[in-house]
Amino acid sequence: MAQPVSFLSDFGTQDEFVGVVHGVIYRLSPASRVIDITHGITPGDIRGGALALTRAIQYLPPGVVLAIVDPGVGTPRKALALETAAGFFVGPDNGLLSPAVAMVGGAVAIHAIENREVMIEGPGNTFAGRDVFAPAAGLLAAGEATLADLGPELDPGQVLPLMLPLPKVEESAIHGEVLWVDWYGNVQTNIGPEDLAAIGVGPGESVEVRVGASAHEGRFVTTFGDVAVGELAIHVDSAGLIGIAVRGGRADEEISLASGRPLSFRRS
Amino acid sequence: MAQPVSFLSDFGTQDEFVGVVHGVIYRLSPASRVIDITHGITPGDIRGGALALTRAIQYLPPGVVLAIVDPGVGTPRKALALETAAGFFVGPDNGLLSPAVAMVGGAVAIHAIENREVMIEGPGNTFAGRDVFAPAAGLLAAGEATLADLGPELDPGQVLPLMLPLPKVEESAIHGEVLWVDWYGNVQTNIGPEDLAAIGVGPGESVEVRVGASAHEGRFVTTFGDVAVGELAIHVDSAGLIGIAVRGGRADEEISLASGRPLSFRRS
Amino acid sequence: MAQPVSFLSDFGTQDEFVGVVHGVIYRLSPASRVIDITHGITPGDIRGGALALTRAIQYLPPGVVLAIVDPGVGTPRKALALETAAGFFVGPDNGLLSPAVAMVGGAVAIHAIENREVMIEGPGNTFAGRDVFAPAAGLLAAGEATLADLGPELDPGQVLPLMLPLPKVEESAIHGEVLWVDWYGNVQTNIGPEDLAAIGVGPGESVEVRVGASAHEGRFVTTFGDVAVGELAIHVDSAGLIGIAVRGGRADEEISLASGRPLSFRRS
Repeated sequence: MAQPVSFLSDFGTQDEFVGVVHGVIYRLSPASRVIDITHGITPGDIRGGALALTRAIQYLPPGVVLAIVDPGVGTPRKALALETAAGFFVGPDNGLLSPAVAMVGGAVAIHAIENREVMIEGPGNTFAGRDVFAPAAGLLAAGEATLADLGPELDPGQVLPLMLPLPKVEESAIHGEVLWVDWYGNVQTNIGPEDLAAIGVGPGESVEVRVGASAHEGRFVTTFGDVAVGELAIHVDSAGLIGIAVRGGRADEEISLASGRPLSFRRS
Repeated sequence: MAQPVSFLSDFGTQDEFVGVVHGVIYRLSPASRVIDITHGITPGDIRGGALALTRAIQYLPPGVVLAIVDPGVGTPRKALALETAAGFFVGPDNGLLSPAVAMVGGAVAIHAIENREVMIEGPGNTFAGRDVFAPAAGLLAAGEATLADLGPELDPGQVLPLMLPLPKVEESAIHGEVLWVDWYGNVQTNIGPEDLAAIGVGPGESVEVRVGASAHEGRFVTTFGDVAVGELAIHVDSAGLIGIAVRGGRADEEISLASGRPLSFRRS
Repeated sequence: MAQPVSFLSDFGTQDEFVGVVHGVIYRLSPASRVIDITHGITPGDIRGGALALTRAIQYLPPGVVLAIVDPGVGTPRKALALETAAGFFVGPDNGLLSPAVAMVGGAVAIHAIENREVMIEGPGNTFAGRDVFAPAAGLLAAGEATLADLGPELDPGQVLPLMLPLPKVEESAIHGEVLWVDWYGNVQTNIGPEDLAAIGVGPGESVEVRVGASAHEGRFVTTFGDVAVGELAIHVDSAGLIGIAVRGGRADEEISLASGRPLSFRRS
């Protein structure tokens, strides 16, 4: 039975790239549904793509995950196809797949996509999404190929991991960074609720957020509705990490945060 | 038999929100097609979302409408599931669904989505699209739940309506406002062709459009092709309301119009 | 059996236009999958839409192609439905379909969509995508209509071609122009690899790119990885044309290129 394909990329929506990949998959596996996770990853932002995929993965149907953020296209970076307990993953060997694969329990097999017979022979070699990744995803989804048909098995140690920054918890402060600013201006940090607990901040209590030379007062609440309009709501976000929101506003603008920016929390 | 889900939101296309909702629906109702009406509603713009849904509704297949523009997420606003002659509607209780539901003849039953067993228990409570609305839509589409399974019935009077501005027709002028500026810069007003007739403007005749302190000459025509390039075409738009277009240009820029801006028409 | 519909437009993703067209197609042909090629064509950019469709066409499944970039909506331009060896094409008669139809071997029959019974009778006549093109595509995809059901046959000579600029090859220089700048800032020219060969530029050799008064040094390489970060990679792109990329950067910004801009290549 044909499996669904969940597809994430930095292709944007301006060009025909996404449609062409859909076309290639349809031709190989017409009964597979394709779910577009997002194609709005910042061009070349491997970490941003990996984090989005990791946040989404447990809500996607078992099947094939096709993820393409591939600034190294046209260099010797490998093309990967992995099998996990949650299905297949297809994408470049640059760390993009690693956190999501880890989240579903790791790979049981990893192959490089190298066999020319499973690729589309297109002009140029700049559109690996179309010529290499989509055919592999389509064949796996259709049950028309095994990993071994795509290319040689790799050792897990040969695959690039993705280093994600860990917060540093001191006695009275946590130093972390911004992982993600969403469409609404809500901010996700790399800090967990257990870190806040470790510095003694409990539900309903005040927290100081330091960004650069500025300090901002927030409250650790359960829902946005627990703070007044315009106030900082420090909360557990939809991925289980500490988020920063401004009720009725944009936290990224109010306190100058962007992906990768360091920040710290302190009791106040 | 699985029903299609028509899905509108202000989620944008940058993050994985839309894909996650598709994933949740797929897992509950794999045979349901999901039609993305649009996810480009301005964040938090309930009126803009309600109007887009109302313009689209009669062209969508019967099934489930899932609409999420939810600035009140995390506050005690209710989550609704309604049944109408045209199918089910799922979304927040903030007026977003009201005009479209009215257009298809009103609700025959209204329930609040409150039963925890039909929700996804995710971290945080900021992504009701994933945890509350998508599961309800998926279960209804699959025929796996009734409204009563989702939560208690509500009285129609408990549901928030949406107030849409009515034009004021005087003897020689109509005072209205802009409802929508589309991607091409075409403008939709809240004024109907019967209002133009009431001030004596007939097909082919000139109309004056006043915006702030400026007056602009237009002609009430059947098609864009009836005016010269650069001229204002006052016309009945694709939703049956009076629209303003500039042939070969953008009406919003030419005469400074934006959603919510007041304007008036006069015979000239 | 229902055929898939591949859909390209300049509708953007902000409004409900794309969703409404999906709805109309679903109602007429519920078993047809709809592949969105892209809806990000610059509003009214017929050439841009035609080129995107041409680059995509060979990767799409046989079925119905629905393409709408229609600045002449509301003028007497015809609505077309064509049959080719690769399936049906539906769209406005403004050149949009012509290069893609030529690429699949030309039309075996061309009809104008004129019969009112196959159209949706909506208010206004500004949304031909909904009222004229989508119903035609849906009926053809469902096998519920033949071309003759849509309207009268046309002579190929009655259909608008699209003039694409040809490069001018001199003894030591090629004069061409930019066809497309993609999401990543990579540039596609209207120049082919055989043109570079004609002026004596072989693989691995240097090329001078002149844009306006500026000259830039590049190298004609097989893959992006063959140049250093920041260098110009002149390469055969994914459509078989000469492309210009900057490894790790945006060629459009580095050397001031945009769609339609003239440039020339010289041996250096």
